[in-house]
Amino acid sequence: MQSQPTPRKPVLIVGSIGLDTIETPFGVVEEVLGGAASYASTAASFFSEVRMVGVIGEDFPAEHLEYLHGREIDLTGVQRAPGKTFRWNGFYEFDMNQAHTLATHLNVFEHFRPTIPPAYADTPYVFLANIDPDLQLAVLDQVTSPKFVLADTMNFWIDGKRDQVLEVFKRVDAVTLNDAEARQLCDTTSLVNAGRQLLNMGPKVVIIKKGEHGALLFTQRDYFATPSFPLEEVHDPTGAGDTFAGGVIGYLAFTDSIAAETIRKAIVYGTVLASYTVEDFSLHRLSRLELGEVMVRYAEMRRITAFAE
Amino acid sequence: MQSQPTPRKPVLIVGSIGLDTIETPFGVVEEVLGGAASYASTAASFFSEVRMVGVIGEDFPAEHLEYLHGREIDLTGVQRAPGKTFRWNGFYEFDMNQAHTLATHLNVFEHFRPTIPPAYADTPYVFLANIDPDLQLAVLDQVTSPKFVLADTMNFWIDGKRDQVLEVFKRVDAVTLNDAEARQLCDTTSLVNAGRQLLNMGPKVVIIKKGEHGALLFTQRDYFATPSFPLEEVHDPTGAGDTFAGGVIGYLAFTDSIAAETIRKAIVYGTVLASYTVEDFSLHRLSRLELGEVMVRYAEMRRITAFAE
Repeated sequence: MQSQPTPRKPVLIVGSIGLDTIETPFGVVEEVLGGAASYASTAASFFSEVRMVGVIGEDFPAEHLEYLHGREIDLTGVQRAPGKTFRWNGFYEFDMNQAHTLATHLNVFEHFRPTIPPAYADTPYVFLANIDPDLQLAVLDQVTSPKFVLADTMNFWIDGKRDQVLEVFKRVDAVTLNDAEARQLCDTTSLVNAGRQLLNMGPKVVIIKKGEHGALLFTQRDYFATPSFPLEEVHDPTGAGDTFAGGVIGYLAFTDSIAAETIRKAIVYGTVLASYTVEDFSLHRLSRLELGEVMVRYAEMRRITAFAE
Repeated sequence: MQSQPTPRKPVLIVGSIGLDTIETPFGVVEEVLGGAASYASTAASFFSEVRMVGVIGEDFPAEHLEYLHGREIDLTGVQRAPGKTFRWNGFYEFDMNQAHTLATHLNVFEHFRPTIPPAYADTPYVFLANIDPDLQLAVLDQVTSPKFVLADTMNFWIDGKRDQVLEVFKRVDAVTLNDAEARQLCDTTSLVNAGRQLLNMGPKVVIIKKGEHGALLFTQRDYFATPSFPLEEVHDPTGAGDTFAGGVIGYLAFTDSIAAETIRKAIVYGTVLASYTVEDFSLHRLSRLELGEVMVRYAEMRRITAFAE
């Protein structure tokens, strides 16, 4: 991958930036950097130039901005608004698949209206992280013929703004949902059936995230299944899905390709990046991760999934 | 596979033979052929000569014996005992991952003591399906230095006869458990951790079955993860795990190899056979399945899991 020059197109990432307080069986962290855009942008930055759009409050620590800036993430689109930064307080018990929310303080995020800086409007690769689908639609109105838009959502919006979620799905190239969300939206227990239904809602590419069980890719012509990278311990699953999506969009931009084979590789790179995220709290592991380590686990993914004819 | 002559060693399969009454969202069947040994023997018979050991009652329909005999399954070890055949009555709701038992009538199975016919004692490949671990140990006492023994168990025995289950694990080469059983036995939510713990209990090979999420293989040197074969509908999941295990042991016997690469292939063949089992009730689909269809889905498994360097 490193050996050949590539097009390396930029990526636009729109989503939450927050301060998380999290408890897991492995410890507690307070007011650490979180939010979907933080995880996704960090992941995408391994492969491509990232343009981040989000909102922070007056209290957002300078060190986090320095960290993001240090990853060469373009922060022109990060607005600083009067008030406090978005905060999430949650915990995980023995079963790390289930996040429990103690408190969500939207703060400046409550009145967030994403404004895409004019210089970003023609960004070819876009990731709309999980935010209000009305805001996702507002972003789509501000970008000019992107090559590939990936959107995420969550059960809260599927319940409360189903029509708008479906409108987003009609207007993007790809969607990523976790397994429970896919089952909920499609009213089926079969993820294969859900994948087919989701394709019929508009997107050409559907990716269902299954946490420890890996991910599934559906297109009209292709189906791909990958396991997760095997870990004996997950210290904090927060941000795994956003890391995954950021890795996917970042790798597609890096190769400037949405060929079926490239999407498969992007999904495995996303899987690998997510496996590092969950090894520590917040972006602690990802922030000290090197591309060489990513390549090692990518190669390992090939070994653990291979079988002969 | 068909193009080369192979050693094709026989397989000994010990387990339940029963008559099932099952309701799923796709229909109801009454008193159909069931039991772990029936599924596993049918699956193994695609690859190898099968020697089946179990018990049936006086009421066991001749047609089922004819069916098994027609698959060239050796029924010398199937005892007919006074009384009625083992019966299971269960249903599945919308979530097909969860079987609900309405009634279990052990009948002749209650006093079943497996007797291995002398001519079977040196069978090189053995599958001990899910029965009382004391009976599994009794079988191990009757076989003479088998090359490879695979054992299954279930939550009922892990709860009630944990020490005997662990004794079985010490004496066999391989175990197969579903994900819930692995977590239960190892007191962990991490299947990777459970796999490592299970290896430390004795077996050289551990296979964790995850239903729709595929299977994981653990050895001291190897780790392998495969997804399931994608199906939009599962008509009846009964027997999937036993079909899987039968396919695994049958393929190992067919190649007379327990090399890491062969075990991976065996797991994929088991996965493919199980995908056919769940397409219909009982052994309806498996009984009309042809080896060519198995090969087609095997090739498809390679396509859906492949990704480039």
